[in-house]
This record gives sequence, structure tokens and C-alpha cells, in this order.
Amino acid sequence: MSPSPRAIVLLSGGLDSATTMAIARSLGFEIFALSFAYGQRHAAEVEAARRVAQALGAAQHIVATIDLRALGGSALTADIPVPRDRSDAELGSDIPVTYVPARNTIFLSYALGWAEVLDARDIFIGVNALDYSGYPDCRPEFIAAFERVANLGTRAGVEGHGFRIHTPLIQLSKPEIIAQGRELGVDYGLTLSCYDPSPSGAPCGHCDACQLRKKGFASLGMRDPAIRD
Amino acid sequence: MSPSPRAIVLLSGGLDSATTMAIARSLGFEIFALSFAYGQRHAAEVEAARRVAQALGAAQHIVATIDLRALGGSALTADIPVPRDRSDAELGSDIPVTYVPARNTIFLSYALGWAEVLDARDIFIGVNALDYSGYPDCRPEFIAAFERVANLGTRAGVEGHGFRIHTPLIQLSKPEIIAQGRELGVDYGLTLSCYDPSPSGAPCGHCDACQLRKKGFASLGMRDPAIRD
Repeated sequence: MSPSPRAIVLLSGGLDSATTMAIARSLGFEIFALSFAYGQRHAAEVEAARRVAQALGAAQHIVATIDLRALGGSALTADIPVPRDRSDAELGSDIPVTYVPARNTIFLSYALGWAEVLDARDIFIGVNALDYSGYPDCRPEFIAAFERVANLGTRAGVEGHGFRIHTPLIQLSKPEIIAQGRELGVDYGLTLSCYDPSPSGAPCGHCDACQLRKKGFASLGMRDPAIRD
Repeated sequence: MSPSPRAIVLLSGGLDSATTMAIARSLGFEIFALSFAYGQRHAAEVEAARRVAQALGAAQHIVATIDLRALGGSALTADIPVPRDRSDAELGSDIPVTYVPARNTIFLSYALGWAEVLDARDIFIGVNALDYSGYPDCRPEFIAAFERVANLGTRAGVEGHGFRIHTPLIQLSKPEIIAQGRELGVDYGLTLSCYDPSPSGAPCGHCDACQLRKKGFASLGMRDPAIRD
């Protein structure tokens, strides 16, 4: 039996990335999970990533410290208030203030570097073009452009072993993502998607990310197991 | 008089990036210099970047700490010996072991994030396709692909204010680079290109980078002012 091919999975510890990791595993990949500590106001997100990586059986999980805070410019890394209880019309209508400059470009670049070191050719990222239409770096054309960078900018790409950026959630609705994750055994009680968790790591229940999750579970007739309210 | 447009310059503190910064300044840009501390074996490179940024009048210089060491895989970040005194045939004949996985992709991603925060649209990088033909991420087609990522993956790009990645050295020989820098007043005694400097920050004189510099100065009938031997 040949060994499983390796894949890098970008793992924030949120609902989407946990589902993405479960999908990568179901496709037969050995999972190398990559998270980032990037000046978030709370370390709770990294703790959620550790829980998820362990529960879903990552071969390795690394948390790379990156210095996005030095660049400024976002509610997730600077002192701009996170919006609460926005209406459906507001959600996804524009580029949110929680947008981090070039974030997915930076995250994918690290994933590419690690993939090259591990001799992996597959990178999974849980971007979603429906719920997060306001983020330019969640669109299919961005992902295709990055895949081209990966194949032109690396030794492995030049030698003809093409990289592939997998985006299994890109066209799924939140209820579809949750339904697929539940089939694959994801424990969503371990995940944390909140932009503004409490010091103890509990989700706020009111930011855009919490609202999207709650609506997703509600439309399946369920409560979000991570939100207690 | 309108204010100068802003440009991000990737500044390693070496000969090429110092020349690139001088060129960007000569084109009328206000310079925001970006360096990285990424697990180099010596901090001397960052010190050289500080000297150059100050001497050439950067409006701001930031040193972002990034965690390439966690990814492993290169003589510049891991414990693989740096090659010494390679022949001309060996220099540039293949991808060197000093290649850092996805390095320029990661560096350009950070530059892009900072550019977006600063409302800058111009990023300068001192890549060179002649001397460093072995590095896939120094080629024009890689740079073009990254420019596309920049314009698809950011709010500013989506809103139609296109980013431009400038590579003023890409087709220049080392003597041409040095001649241009001297015309623009670059003090190459401040720069450090060495892959394996001494603990005090002196270049080794024997690694690929030192050899390329020495040959460049020699072909102009000069000694490299940074190398004392």
C-alpha cells in the first residue's frame, strides 16, 4: 500500500476550516494543518485550531507566528470595533472592516512554502464565495491566480509537479457546509468562528461570523453547539 | 505640489535591494522599506537593512518577524552548510540549496498587505533573472503572476486601483546594477549580501552572493567596499 499523499490544510479553528480539514481527510490525504498567530486580540482561535487538529487526526499541526499587526488596517488586528448584529442586507453587502489586508495571500504563501518542504502538492483552504462575497481573496479567480503563482514561483512547480489549491467549500451555503461536516464527523462544539470572543474563548454570538453560523444551524433545525445563549 | 506617491520597497540590506530603493527614490516615490527577520542565522542582514533605509531616506522602515524556520528546508534558515567558492559553471546552473521555499511569494504578500494599508500601489523588489536564474521566484513570469494575485485578492485591486510590482533590476547584470547604484549615490559599504556572515556581520567573501558581488565590482575595475580581504 502506498503512503497517503500529503496535504496542507489552512486551519483557523472555525467552522469552515474544520469542515475543510474533514473533507481533505475523507479524500485520503495525510493532513498537515497550518494555523497562524497574527496579533489577534484573543488566542482563543489558536486554541480552537489545536482542538480541531487533534480531533480530526492531523499528522502535524504548526502555528506560525506572523506579524500582521505591524501592517495595521483591520478590526481583527487593530483597535477598530467589530460590528455587531448587522442585518442580512449588511452582511456580505460590502468588504467588511474585518477584512485583513492580503490575508489569504499571506496564508497561502506560507502554506506553499510548507508544501514545498513536505513534498506535498495539495493545499486546502476553506474560503467561501457565497457567505463571504465581500472578501476579494475568497473568490475563485483569486484562487486560480494564486495557483499560478505557486506553480511559477517554486522549485517543485518549475520541475513540473503541479500544486493544486483546493477550495471544497467555495460554492456551498453555510447549511450545506454544516451538513457535509456532520456527515464526516466534525464536532462543531470544538470550533470557534467568532471575531470577538470573550477572554475565556466563548463566542460573542453577535458578530458577522457568529450570526452566519447561527443562521446556518437554525436552517437545519439545530442550535449552534459552540454558542451558549 | 501634490505629495509624492508611496512605494513599498523590499529591502534585505544587500546590494540589489539597496540599488532598487535608490531607483524607486529617483522615480519620485516616498519610500516605505520592508525587511524581514525570518530565522536567519545572523541578524547582520537586518542591521544592514536599517543602515541602508536610513542612508537612502526611507519615510518608514519596518522589520516584520516571520516564522520561516518553522517550515524548514533551506540553508538560510536551517542547518545545511552554505556552499563556498563554487565555480562559474555551478553558480546559477541550478536551484541553489540557499533557496528558501516560497520566499518571494511570502515577502511580496506582506508588501501587498502593507501597500493596501498605506494606500500605496507600487511595490519594488530587486529580483534579478540573470545572476539568480536558479531561483524560480526571480523570473518575470512569476512577478506577472503575483501582480495578478495582488489585483484580484485585495480591496484596492478590486476597486480598480491597480497594483504594480516593479523589478528594475530584473534584466541587469551585476556590473550594470552597481554602475546604476553608484550614479544614484548608493554607498555599497553599508550593504551586506553574504549568506554566511561572521558573528560581527562581516561578509565571508566566498558564498555565491559574495562571489557575484566581487566579480561585479571587479569587472568595473573596483573592489567591493563591503569585503575586506
